[in-house]
Amino acid sequence: MAEFHSKIKTIEWINNYSKMVDQTVLPYEFKYVNITSGQEMYDAIKTMIVRGAPAIGVAGAHGVVLYAQELAKENLSRDEFAKRLLEKADYMATSRPTAVNLMWAVEKQKEIIKNSTADIKGIVEELKQNAIKMENDDIEINKKIGDYGAEVVPKGATILTHCNAGGLATVGYGTALGVVRSAFANDPTIQVFADETRPRQQGARITTFELTMDGIPTTLITDGMCSYFMKKGMIDMVVVGADRIAANGDAANKIGTYTVAIAAKYHNIPFYVAAPLSTIDTSIKTGDEIVIEERSRDEVTHINGKIICAESVNVINPGFDVTPHELISGIITEKGILRPAYTKSIAEAFRL
Amino acid sequence: MAEFHSKIKTIEWINNYSKMVDQTVLPYEFKYVNITSGQEMYDAIKTMIVRGAPAIGVAGAHGVVLYAQELAKENLSRDEFAKRLLEKADYMATSRPTAVNLMWAVEKQKEIIKNSTADIKGIVEELKQNAIKMENDDIEINKKIGDYGAEVVPKGATILTHCNAGGLATVGYGTALGVVRSAFANDPTIQVFADETRPRQQGARITTFELTMDGIPTTLITDGMCSYFMKKGMIDMVVVGADRIAANGDAANKIGTYTVAIAAKYHNIPFYVAAPLSTIDTSIKTGDEIVIEERSRDEVTHINGKIICAESVNVINPGFDVTPHELISGIITEKGILRPAYTKSIAEAFRL
Repeated sequence: MAEFHSKIKTIEWINNYSKMVDQTVLPYEFKYVNITSGQEMYDAIKTMIVRGAPAIGVAGAHGVVLYAQELAKENLSRDEFAKRLLEKADYMATSRPTAVNLMWAVEKQKEIIKNSTADIKGIVEELKQNAIKMENDDIEINKKIGDYGAEVVPKGATILTHCNAGGLATVGYGTALGVVRSAFANDPTIQVFADETRPRQQGARITTFELTMDGIPTTLITDGMCSYFMKKGMIDMVVVGADRIAANGDAANKIGTYTVAIAAKYHNIPFYVAAPLSTIDTSIKTGDEIVIEERSRDEVTHINGKIICAESVNVINPGFDVTPHELISGIITEKGILRPAYTKSIAEAFRL
Repeated sequence: MAEFHSKIKTIEWINNYSKMVDQTVLPYEFKYVNITSGQEMYDAIKTMIVRGAPAIGVAGAHGVVLYAQELAKENLSRDEFAKRLLEKADYMATSRPTAVNLMWAVEKQKEIIKNSTADIKGIVEELKQNAIKMENDDIEINKKIGDYGAEVVPKGATILTHCNAGGLATVGYGTALGVVRSAFANDPTIQVFADETRPRQQGARITTFELTMDGIPTTLITDGMCSYFMKKGMIDMVVVGADRIAANGDAANKIGTYTVAIAAKYHNIPFYVAAPLSTIDTSIKTGDEIVIEERSRDEVTHINGKIICAESVNVINPGFDVTPHELISGIITEKGILRPAYTKSIAEAFRL
């Protein structure tokens, strides 16, 4: 199988700080920012300088290292250091409530803090090494997801995706767009339709940016158009990412995903979710238990700082929706493609 | 039944010119423009200064009057005047290819040109009187549509609409929003969810503007969100307009409508089309025969003049889609609500 080399590296630990692509200025600028404190990382996650569930996970892990570095300078006892750092870690985990990867990554760092036998300096080093390992694991996992997913992409297919589950949502390579990259490496006749993904336009701003940067043919469409192209036979499959998946396969992803899934079902088009196992939260039975983050009205009422509607209009802005498992053809993970019934296939994947 | 008084009058013939709301600057400015020549009217329709199928119909009729006034000054023979005016009328009809009301209205003016026994001055006057009659008929028809539609709006309902089939899509009152206005006059607890309607954002720019101006509670959502709110039980019915309806009930409307219709079906929510009989083109059997206008890439790639995506991305921008009749619960017309099977109920409505 051919290997695809992407130009994107979204987040990386450098010596004593975190370097990341600033995704709020895409596609106008492609610039990196250096995050040098825990609070800066909290803000970077909250304001979506870094976004995408896997990238947020690594960002959260970096954030804990940054807090550890700060607290290490405060001449605390080892116990006091650990106690305060665990509090900071919990605070870091609240920066994006829907992203399970964030909680998962912070939890992994908390386990180190709780279980390490090293001194303060040693704990900081262990947290740093663990964060770097998460970076490498993420790319490795995405390549596996990509390769498994590529097996179900028909020759010459047009793949619809929503939001950005790409290299810029991960450390690199991407989950849904990892599938695209692996498929494209073997078949350069495949192409992508990218939903704009209002309100934040991650599809327009980020997916079209990273795919054209990597030379993959991409067509931008608005969110309402998917059914039109499905009916015309111009879309062969849908692949999206996920922010959290329940034990029964219900998948929370960017708002609008559920609408695409319904349209795919209506047209008998396969709808896949591509996500690492760390996205699956087996502690929740169904998607009904997933708390949906409500975001600010400005995201809906303003684009590029300019109002697009009547000022006095009401707004509700859910950041995510839940696609029920019955609309999902398969969940593409690093351990293979999970198929219905998901309660069984997910449980099995965790035992592998 | 209570009557609703709207503040909106979209297009009006004044002495020797056409006065209309400039819809390209909403919601930033509410201003009128005076259209004083046939070519100006062609451009106003093409660039969507005036939009919405019924309003475009009246605009086309006004346009023929403007051309008639111009030709009347050229010292032509009556035959030459009629011949040249019929050519201008045909040209006017090409300004928006999908809008059947435009062709219908221009055809009505052409019949006057062909059948009048008056002199040139008399023909101009007949065309003018006919255009003014169309204005009055449009409001009258919309109020009937509104009153019929209000009968199927449940008490306290939340009505989802897509694009703008409002007072600003018609001479006044509106078709889909005419249903809202009539329902609201009787039950001030109803409210509206308005889809943004990318790419041109008529829902955000125009529907929220005219509904809040008329004091009707309105929530703006992005196009991908409809399914989320449907699943939560927050939407009780969908009412949209139409640009052209085939003899079997298939309805062309703004791109994205079809996606909403599929979502409504999935959630068992009634989906109504509100349109005057003039929107129904019984010369076409099914929606497959409706030619979909493809619009410029800039509408997708730019918002308020600023690019929102990678510059090199491909774009396809269909202006409309066709909702198949099996997704439509009823077509609300000035002669009552037509129900499936539409081939039969539409044929009957034209015989009434």
